[in-house]
Amino acid sequence: MAETQAPTVEPAAEAKPDGDASAPPAKVVKSVVLTGFGGLKMLKVQQKPEMTAADGELLIRVRACGMNFPDLMVRQGVIDTPPKTPITMGFECSGIVEGVGENTTGFKVGDRVIGFTNYNAWAELVSVNANHVFKMPDNMSFQDGAALPMNYVTAYILLFDMANLRKGQSLLVHSVGGGVGTAITQLCKTVEDVTVFGTASSNKHEAVKANVSHIFDHNVDYAQEIRKVTAEGVDIVLDCMCGDDTNKGITLLKPMGKYLLYGSSNIVTGETKSFFSFAKSWWQVDKVNPIKLFDENKVIGGFQLRRLLFNQGQHGYVREVIEKLFKMYSAGKINPTIDSVWAFEDVCDAMQKMQDRKNVGKVLLDPTAEPKPKAVEPEKPAVSADAESGDKQEKKEEKPVQDGK
Amino acid sequence: MAETQAPTVEPAAEAKPDGDASAPPAKVVKSVVLTGFGGLKMLKVQQKPEMTAADGELLIRVRACGMNFPDLMVRQGVIDTPPKTPITMGFECSGIVEGVGENTTGFKVGDRVIGFTNYNAWAELVSVNANHVFKMPDNMSFQDGAALPMNYVTAYILLFDMANLRKGQSLLVHSVGGGVGTAITQLCKTVEDVTVFGTASSNKHEAVKANVSHIFDHNVDYAQEIRKVTAEGVDIVLDCMCGDDTNKGITLLKPMGKYLLYGSSNIVTGETKSFFSFAKSWWQVDKVNPIKLFDENKVIGGFQLRRLLFNQGQHGYVREVIEKLFKMYSAGKINPTIDSVWAFEDVCDAMQKMQDRKNVGKVLLDPTAEPKPKAVEPEKPAVSADAESGDKQEKKEEKPVQDGK
Repeated sequence: MAETQAPTVEPAAEAKPDGDASAPPAKVVKSVVLTGFGGLKMLKVQQKPEMTAADGELLIRVRACGMNFPDLMVRQGVIDTPPKTPITMGFECSGIVEGVGENTTGFKVGDRVIGFTNYNAWAELVSVNANHVFKMPDNMSFQDGAALPMNYVTAYILLFDMANLRKGQSLLVHSVGGGVGTAITQLCKTVEDVTVFGTASSNKHEAVKANVSHIFDHNVDYAQEIRKVTAEGVDIVLDCMCGDDTNKGITLLKPMGKYLLYGSSNIVTGETKSFFSFAKSWWQVDKVNPIKLFDENKVIGGFQLRRLLFNQGQHGYVREVIEKLFKMYSAGKINPTIDSVWAFEDVCDAMQKMQDRKNVGKVLLDPTAEPKPKAVEPEKPAVSADAESGDKQEKKEEKPVQDGK
Repeated sequence: MAETQAPTVEPAAEAKPDGDASAPPAKVVKSVVLTGFGGLKMLKVQQKPEMTAADGELLIRVRACGMNFPDLMVRQGVIDTPPKTPITMGFECSGIVEGVGENTTGFKVGDRVIGFTNYNAWAELVSVNANHVFKMPDNMSFQDGAALPMNYVTAYILLFDMANLRKGQSLLVHSVGGGVGTAITQLCKTVEDVTVFGTASSNKHEAVKANVSHIFDHNVDYAQEIRKVTAEGVDIVLDCMCGDDTNKGITLLKPMGKYLLYGSSNIVTGETKSFFSFAKSWWQVDKVNPIKLFDENKVIGGFQLRRLLFNQGQHGYVREVIEKLFKMYSAGKINPTIDSVWAFEDVCDAMQKMQDRKNVGKVLLDPTAEPKPKAVEPEKPAVSADAESGDKQEKKEEKPVQDGK
């Protein structure tokens, strides 16, 4: 038999039958729990007792959850303030309001909503601060709803608040095929005559080329390639890589150019995948003297939506942005690209796909979806003959296998 | 007799009569020439032969010229790329087109225009690259025209391109009574519900209070005072001081806040007034790691209009901004505050007023104005009894004196 280390549904300690045969069985909900930092095997689908809506919160019956790069960083423990494990993962979801807590106004049971959560979204049921919940437009599907919050709010704020994108400008976007990348390219289409330079893995070039003017593999000397097209550089650089890409990005700016850092995925895809790769990335980034920016007419900045919402309390500002995005959605101006939708039990496959940068657009989880049937693999020799890389080997080891389902 | 070191009109070498009594006298024009770096005594009003419009340029009969803080820095030689002296000073003027060079289109003799110049504006006649010349609205006076280019273009780009000022936001503006400061406060009035915190010398508080919500002396702990009003800080800091104000400004930012450096006048008003004060200011400014901006959701940047125009060739972008400003002017939304208008011969008084930070709004020179009558002062003792400061002493020593005019 193949190994089955990864998500098998297991009851949480609290949800175990208490031995009193006369009591009705406790209602339980499934969730994707990170049991400790590390590889995919740290993810388990567990059952826990149903909760109720807390004060100021809404209980949401989840219909779809978004996966984001920060989820990968959380799993590996390479974010600045890692949570205590075990913890239910996930920062966003869509669903239906099932309960309204005390001191919670503006919502009622049955409302179709999206919500930002500071963890806990990857569950059948979640209680969310009403400040972070937004009623969806009637014409929005739950999948689109779950695909929109993190990626489109980030993309909107980067482009229209911080970079102040205008007609005729050019920008460089890394990971242009990813969730934020596809959101950025769609939002750029709402502005006249914008030139998008993108980096992405070669396998995504075909899929993203419709919205990207010039696309390069991230491993080529993209700065040099861009200079061949536009010798003076670009107006805007949106960087989710960090590390050496930061220095390259700032250098690539035209006069009046704006460089914005909104992620640090080099940390996760780096070879060591550890705190040390984070530290290395930090040191690779050159500090900038504001006087240099004054001499060069440049702007640099950074954006992190989770911090804005959960540490800095800027939900009012985010609500304004969400309202604008909903209008754009209803007007058909944006339409989230969904890469794939996965059952909770398939979360490892979903996450591996994102880590391998094979997704084009958003990766979603659906708590109501059935796990995909998987072939029962024969027992493998100690070293797989077709293992091409360490990453793939890890994937093989951790691939969840369902018994004959 | 009092000393008369400062601007007396003297013929330039080239303009001397050549001894041929039958030739008509060469036409000459007056200009304010910096003869070397240093104090006010380095400024001379000189005559030079009339020039013609060069290729791609327009010859402008100057009606008013703007004085800016960079002029003070040039005089002291504390800018990054000081010009060779002697040089006619000045970066902006208004006037009437008197000649159109070859390969110059879009203008005709008699057009009322404003122009940016890389030096040479403080003259009766100047030849200007047509890319840097703009036709004034019919209802704009020459004084308003000369007051507008440097200050309002800087203010507009800072507020509406880089900081992206929105309804309900707050900002801190240093030297809020100066040329750029008054332009910033006027432009802020075009956006709903903006709170302006300003620093200015106490003597200006009364004059600027109509457009400033909270005003502080720059020497008080303004950051602490602002925190008393708004504990979380401000959305935007516009800093023309540099040095320690840079560090304070970045710290004062709210989440999503933007700090913009657009000048370094601490260098000029510092005690040493030398390259060393520039170097000191550089070292006082903390370098910033972009990852810190990512952690804090902040943006920092710098803006320098002269560099944008004369080194980075962005006149097309500046033309768009000028067009927007002209529309605002014609609609009565902006109206330059003129502090004072001076004859070329009074340039030292004008510059001293700006260096002492006594101007409220724009200081202009008018090549057609008569010098102000000045009392002939009695010979002074070696040390003036009422000298209150080094600055004032310098002023007294260098004050131009006209004989009985």
